[in-house]
Amino acid sequence: MNRARLDETLADLDADGYLLDASQEDANQLYLSGFTGPDPFLTLYVDGEVHLLVSGLEYGRARTESTADAVERHADYGYEYGGREERYDMYADFVRDKGVESVSMPPRGPVGTADALRERGVDVAVDGDDRLGEVRAVKTDEEVEAIREAQRANEAAMRAAEELLASADVAGEEASADGDADAEPGVLLAEGEPLTSERVAEEIEVTLLRHGCALDETIVAGGARAADPHDRGSGPLRANEAIIVDIFPRSKATKYNADMTRTFCVGEPPAALRERYDLTERALSAALDAVEPGATGEDVHAAACEVYEAAGHPTFRTDPETETGFIHSTGHGIGLDVHESPRLASGGGELEPGHVITVEPGLYDPDVGGVRIEDLVVVTEDGYENLTEYPIAFEV
Amino acid sequence: MNRARLDETLADLDADGYLLDASQEDANQLYLSGFTGPDPFLTLYVDGEVHLLVSGLEYGRARTESTADAVERHADYGYEYGGREERYDMYADFVRDKGVESVSMPPRGPVGTADALRERGVDVAVDGDDRLGEVRAVKTDEEVEAIREAQRANEAAMRAAEELLASADVAGEEASADGDADAEPGVLLAEGEPLTSERVAEEIEVTLLRHGCALDETIVAGGARAADPHDRGSGPLRANEAIIVDIFPRSKATKYNADMTRTFCVGEPPAALRERYDLTERALSAALDAVEPGATGEDVHAAACEVYEAAGHPTFRTDPETETGFIHSTGHGIGLDVHESPRLASGGGELEPGHVITVEPGLYDPDVGGVRIEDLVVVTEDGYENLTEYPIAFEV
Repeated sequence: MNRARLDETLADLDADGYLLDASQEDANQLYLSGFTGPDPFLTLYVDGEVHLLVSGLEYGRARTESTADAVERHADYGYEYGGREERYDMYADFVRDKGVESVSMPPRGPVGTADALRERGVDVAVDGDDRLGEVRAVKTDEEVEAIREAQRANEAAMRAAEELLASADVAGEEASADGDADAEPGVLLAEGEPLTSERVAEEIEVTLLRHGCALDETIVAGGARAADPHDRGSGPLRANEAIIVDIFPRSKATKYNADMTRTFCVGEPPAALRERYDLTERALSAALDAVEPGATGEDVHAAACEVYEAAGHPTFRTDPETETGFIHSTGHGIGLDVHESPRLASGGGELEPGHVITVEPGLYDPDVGGVRIEDLVVVTEDGYENLTEYPIAFEV
Repeated sequence: MNRARLDETLADLDADGYLLDASQEDANQLYLSGFTGPDPFLTLYVDGEVHLLVSGLEYGRARTESTADAVERHADYGYEYGGREERYDMYADFVRDKGVESVSMPPRGPVGTADALRERGVDVAVDGDDRLGEVRAVKTDEEVEAIREAQRANEAAMRAAEELLASADVAGEEASADGDADAEPGVLLAEGEPLTSERVAEEIEVTLLRHGCALDETIVAGGARAADPHDRGSGPLRANEAIIVDIFPRSKATKYNADMTRTFCVGEPPAALRERYDLTERALSAALDAVEPGATGEDVHAAACEVYEAAGHPTFRTDPETETGFIHSTGHGIGLDVHESPRLASGGGELEPGHVITVEPGLYDPDVGGVRIEDLVVVTEDGYENLTEYPIAFEV
């Protein structure tokens, strides 16, 4: 955590303190409290100090594991398990006990808590600028190292996926004469069985676990399914089609995320698909070339869009309702959240050294398939450093 | 989803509609929208219909995969990526377009959205009773089956963990003469290396993945670390100490969770630990005996507390500040969230058929160790059905 930057940013608030009511699933909470509480707890930042209020169950661990300056527990305010109103009374007492009469909460803070504090005379303002998110966006060297480490695990998982695809037989081809007699020609086979998205995803996930990472979801999508950027994919994969593999693991130790996408084709791709792959590689280069301090997220997005638009493909800039073409933003910040500030999209703000971002142009059409290539980079004083160490190659 | 119950419950609202602004990580959102959107989107329940508002990126998938009655996208309201205020304008337009002038939001809904709608003339009330959570608490047969299926995966993982412990050598004992010469006597050894919490957790997680489940965390905590109920455990495990294994996996297909805890001891436990284990088994029986429709969560909690209190152990009922004894609630509802309604704790409300709950008494003391035994049950018309098919045995 960049404490100096935090102090400087929160000093500007029109409130006495900054309040979070969330569990460890909230990245702001994890960042400010340094505590992995599975149930919601309060964190109050006031006068440069971080105060926690946790249940008795979490008290011992919060004192030893959190990065907070002070930890209190419900019993300190006479609260026992149960009543909702009593719980809110305790929250108001906790805040007032620190001399705080007004707090700022992030936009996604809970409205129940905000309104309950208001009813108890504490002013609650929404931090519409999401200042804590902006502080989090600029990573310290230690945070960049944590992301780099998760990215190494990501690369091991991508390698496992690519090897599984590369070693597959193809139904209907000579080498697979022993395979599943029922498989349609063109379907990939592993050990005689159709190779499915689910099977490749499992290989990725097991590899990540072996490397200390966890994840909720992985995208392994082939053919028409790969034409929907958020489709996770399912069912048998096939030769001569684009297979998008998008992996975003989280380090179990540090809680920082990595993110990378590669698109593979087993055997030769049709000409139209090859063309789209090459174009996407050019869009990636163009977008990366635009990454430097002072450039905006919008500039980087524009660089990718221009490559596609010049080739006649629609983007959200040329047609907000299009369902084919380049139909997402060029990238996003990443850290304790997979998606955080800054955005590489229309309206995306200025890049700063320490921003860790994905750059991930893609092109989609159900009739041809989907292609996406994504690298993970950190903005530096004079450009960027690419944290991705994985080759970009279509045919496997 | 129990649509009839939902309609009946939300019909009582003092508002025109019920509004969610959340991603799939929010269980209410997953339940009401039936859509796995990775970024926050709006779901509005009004006049018995569920309306979604998603980004262009999610539009295709939301139309085919969600259970909503209608899906709209940002472009339908002329919104393009970017401005925060324009985004809130779109939200207000979307709500008003359905004839809605007032909405209810759950307590953990985002205050930024609530305040922005209020500024635009839409009344926003907090659903302090968390009615949607109460609807979710009562499971349909299909939901119970999904939980049962996740529990089968859980049992496979528990078996893998138990087998790893059972097959371990013990440093300093004859059989492990070939083991790690540096390991302290009493440390468990697997293939000559100290067997750690991390290694057992990895085995659990890999087994779960092979069974279609994912999870963020697992507890494998031995010795003094097991005396903190939420400690995940780390480092070498030892013979003759209690090792708590608490697994709460989520089915990747259905998103429903299971939950189970067993406590194991490799070799003979000290008498004090054995006594605590037997007492906890009795507390579990007493609590389970109390589970039936009409009983309250407080009743079930009391049944467990009484066993411990009668044996002279502190509980939160006898000492809210105690850090040893029975220092958590007896259980919780489980479904799309690992922790949801009802609570088996002081103040916990009435149990109903269809409630799926954990029953998990435990006893903790850093000087002796921690013990917890947890089963997963569904409340039935005349009592409960235990969904757990795993033996309760201490020594392995």
